[in-house]
Amino acid sequence: MTLETALYLIPVTLGDTPVEQVLPAWNREVIKGIRHFIVENVRSARRFLKKTEPAIDIDALSFVELNQHTDPKDIAGYLLPLEKGEPMGVISEAGCPAVADPGADVVAIAQEKGLKVVPLVGPSSIIMSVMGSGFNGQSFAFNGYLPIEEGARTKRLQLLETRAWNESQTQLFIETPYRNMKLMEQLLRTLRPRTRLCVASDITCEDEKIVTRSVAEWQRRLKGMTDEERQKEIPRVPAIFLIYKG
Amino acid sequence: MTLETALYLIPVTLGDTPVEQVLPAWNREVIKGIRHFIVENVRSARRFLKKTEPAIDIDALSFVELNQHTDPKDIAGYLLPLEKGEPMGVISEAGCPAVADPGADVVAIAQEKGLKVVPLVGPSSIIMSVMGSGFNGQSFAFNGYLPIEEGARTKRLQLLETRAWNESQTQLFIETPYRNMKLMEQLLRTLRPRTRLCVASDITCEDEKIVTRSVAEWQRRLKGMTDEERQKEIPRVPAIFLIYKG
Repeated sequence: MTLETALYLIPVTLGDTPVEQVLPAWNREVIKGIRHFIVENVRSARRFLKKTEPAIDIDALSFVELNQHTDPKDIAGYLLPLEKGEPMGVISEAGCPAVADPGADVVAIAQEKGLKVVPLVGPSSIIMSVMGSGFNGQSFAFNGYLPIEEGARTKRLQLLETRAWNESQTQLFIETPYRNMKLMEQLLRTLRPRTRLCVASDITCEDEKIVTRSVAEWQRRLKGMTDEERQKEIPRVPAIFLIYKG
Repeated sequence: MTLETALYLIPVTLGDTPVEQVLPAWNREVIKGIRHFIVENVRSARRFLKKTEPAIDIDALSFVELNQHTDPKDIAGYLLPLEKGEPMGVISEAGCPAVADPGADVVAIAQEKGLKVVPLVGPSSIIMSVMGSGFNGQSFAFNGYLPIEEGARTKRLQLLETRAWNESQTQLFIETPYRNMKLMEQLLRTLRPRTRLCVASDITCEDEKIVTRSVAEWQRRLKGMTDEERQKEIPRVPAIFLIYKG
């Protein structure tokens, strides 16, 4: 198969999930047709490619890294093989490239240059948590991380809660795993009792949990628990938090 | 394989795309383990199941419909097989169930009853268009359809544009395919020249196009075109529109 010239956005598994569980067979065919990759981290990209296609000849492939250490001036040059007619791939650390990671910069440049961009299907904790929450999927906003400073964070949370109630817009945000419980405590302190809160953790992985309760119900449930039980309820794993009106 | 008891949210292909291109092999295994389905449309759900698993015995399966004609009082009863311990599946007309379709209601009830919900991976034009646009994927909002009335629509568009600039939040919305060009004309009339506009049409299908330009560039480009050329540029096919600051 000769692959059409384009910038392919190649999702990876979240955690240790088997490739067949979360990626279409087509993605492997695309990978086999690409020699030039733009990746967030070379080591994990190589590991992913080997896992997807054990017969792949990694040494025949070229990799350039795009992450917070990349000089923005270098990014445009990354696309030279594509401009010469060779298909290229973008691979990020987890999930879908160019969503919540630096891949978007190189896609923006490809679009400016009028180059073809082709996203592939893969696991997105954003869309999967919206599906599983039972909240409004006709209007939802992903907000990334909340501000770190306490006052700014509370203010932002109240803004998001207002949008959930007044605009019927589901609001999503994330936190660094080891701070999940701290965020949860703040949510239960700050949000209205009737606001519904969904915690979706370890999406597509063995311990996946997607649980929706009202703020009042979460409060009751966590109140009676030992620290160990609470830790199990809100584990230190990748998680996404969603709120919606009750 | 015995499938774990849960409500599985099963994405379908968008358009005529082959199953292997957009759905993981795992989804087929899940389907083979399910006898009770809640679907938006029985006929297209049967067609999808046959396409995914030609050996399936459709007559051995049970289907209930969940759509705008469903009496809300009936929905809770739909989950009886699940409450008795049988895995169930939700299938919508296109893409991911419970995102921009009625499936969310039955998921909300499952969550209230404390039943396990498991979303599967599949094509989402929302996430794929964010990936391909080059816009901010760390903050984005899907807004469904815009208001139909002209004044309300203009006002909403201006609100979304303000959020794109002031909050750095990518804004997404959709339109009925035959009105795509009319929406496009309004966008070019209403938005600031420097605002960037991405039109993503026929995602995952043969004629997929994901093109980002500034409003000023789109204006220049469409201006010199014949009606036929414009029709080809903004076709009457499922499309999603994204805006972001320039």
